[in-house]
Amino acid sequence: MAASIKDVAREAGVSIATVSRVLNDVDVVNDETKKKVMDAIKKLGYRPNIVARSLKTQKTKTIGIVIPDISSAFYPEIVRGAEDVANIYNYNIILCNTDLDSEKEKEYLRVLKEKMVDGIIYMSNSLADEILELTRELDLPTVLVETTDLNKTFPSVTIDNIKAAYDATSYLIKKGNKNIAYFGPPRNIINASASRYKGYEEALVDNGLAINENLVVAGGLKAKDAENYIEKLEENNALKDVDAIFCSTDELAMGVINNLRERGINVPKDVDIVSFDNTYTSSIFYPKLTTINQPTYDMGSVGMRMLIKIINKKPIDVTQYVLPYELIERDSCK
Amino acid sequence: MAASIKDVAREAGVSIATVSRVLNDVDVVNDETKKKVMDAIKKLGYRPNIVARSLKTQKTKTIGIVIPDISSAFYPEIVRGAEDVANIYNYNIILCNTDLDSEKEKEYLRVLKEKMVDGIIYMSNSLADEILELTRELDLPTVLVETTDLNKTFPSVTIDNIKAAYDATSYLIKKGNKNIAYFGPPRNIINASASRYKGYEEALVDNGLAINENLVVAGGLKAKDAENYIEKLEENNALKDVDAIFCSTDELAMGVINNLRERGINVPKDVDIVSFDNTYTSSIFYPKLTTINQPTYDMGSVGMRMLIKIINKKPIDVTQYVLPYELIERDSCK
Repeated sequence: MAASIKDVAREAGVSIATVSRVLNDVDVVNDETKKKVMDAIKKLGYRPNIVARSLKTQKTKTIGIVIPDISSAFYPEIVRGAEDVANIYNYNIILCNTDLDSEKEKEYLRVLKEKMVDGIIYMSNSLADEILELTRELDLPTVLVETTDLNKTFPSVTIDNIKAAYDATSYLIKKGNKNIAYFGPPRNIINASASRYKGYEEALVDNGLAINENLVVAGGLKAKDAENYIEKLEENNALKDVDAIFCSTDELAMGVINNLRERGINVPKDVDIVSFDNTYTSSIFYPKLTTINQPTYDMGSVGMRMLIKIINKKPIDVTQYVLPYELIERDSCK
Repeated sequence: MAASIKDVAREAGVSIATVSRVLNDVDVVNDETKKKVMDAIKKLGYRPNIVARSLKTQKTKTIGIVIPDISSAFYPEIVRGAEDVANIYNYNIILCNTDLDSEKEKEYLRVLKEKMVDGIIYMSNSLADEILELTRELDLPTVLVETTDLNKTFPSVTIDNIKAAYDATSYLIKKGNKNIAYFGPPRNIINASASRYKGYEEALVDNGLAINENLVVAGGLKAKDAENYIEKLEENNALKDVDAIFCSTDELAMGVINNLRERGINVPKDVDIVSFDNTYTSSIFYPKLTTINQPTYDMGSVGMRMLIKIINKKPIDVTQYVLPYELIERDSCK
């Protein structure tokens, strides 16, 4: 039969209340007694009823991770990084896929509150005001990963998307390219990937190049979206002039390269391409992609560490954590 | 202030005990009363304390998913399929990455039991006896996905790996190839991907081709493992004769194609390749891979549906669910 809390108390020679205090991390037990209790727990293989304890301590050692879609190339590494750190601190993660549907996001946030998660890692391109409000209302420690809210009231882990896009575009310019297209989300959206447009624009301006609106195309971030972008360039009568393309994700870049290949346009011989993310596939694609490395695993692990500190009322050094990125030079540019 | 169970009872004109019975899915409440209660819950926006209720019902509406590594290409789609079905039935998933480390697997299983998950979806290449024993001991409904236990005592969702590998190899033979290499896990391992060797062997024998041990190489399943395989063929003095290669995963196939390209060997001009999985990237890789489609999303969703039925003591039609696969013809074969 499984050992009970009574058995642990008897083995350690202390009261049940003392064992309970040790289990609940109440700080009044001295170290010697604590050690006795921990030794007894180990010896007897005692495992407390976590659910009952959760009700008492209001802590479930569980964290919600709210993401758009685990089957999208960018997120698995982030989740892996977050789960590894959670595991170190004996937390588990509840994974929620929202498809950027704000109704689904709200429902998940409510359910996570009801299940008494200790905190939330939140990733979304949308970051609707109502979601931010609900998050505040639910009063759950929350860390944003890959994005910030407009006023930076929530702690976050990101890279400097504007600067990274600036560097990527400057790299294309340095290679001698003049007609550089931008493929990415519409400029009026406020989020990580949309802010890259700003970096693209600044790089052109700083290098004395004019913004050619025929070369700026808004659209999705998947490989299958490539065709729409290129057709748009054709409609604008701009495809023939393009020297280079800034693509907002690796996935999109791969779709674009394949689409251009079918049209007899070779990357990098005819067109240079730089993209974003450095997903695993970008290094085994042909040609291998020149891309901005986002430290996805670190974004997840740093975000989770930050969240666990907040949950346990430990001080955190910075609330807006900006991780370093890197331009990885491979074979999609001349 | 949030509505209480008392408010719901008053609104519905029933006793608190009746509301409680409805919430706990006890089947003695008639439909009319149930509807009244549900209407009142909806009207008042009542949300029960799930954790307290879990202790009483011994149900947490939470399911553990134990997988090797969410950041490996094969698993995100499975998890997505599983989570979508879980969401439909108001379950949440706790995601656990084990890296096929059986100590980690055991610890996760114990923690999931303590957190009172209602069931487990378990994916692993290893399936050590001790894990199966522990799973039985913990007495948690469990469904295996992508693999079966040797004696098929656990419910499972798989494809027929032997037959799929047989078809893939036969396809290579039909294309006129004679010297067909096998790249995959060692034959002595008992799991889904290792069983593919059997299909490879049977196809050769049925087509009157001899097994050439110099062409059978065991190794890992990642792109980076490609070099080891090809070096082994060289050591065996067999690389020059190879007409075609059966690769156990798409990732491995992509690594192999890149490695051969660097050696001046073109796929499919010089060597045909068939692989396994039909991961998203296989369709955007160059050349696009001819591969066995594993219905990953369905494996997750069917497995989760099966598990939820078992948890709720509903009858299931089959315990060993074998999903259809498909050979997708693309550009990695002549």
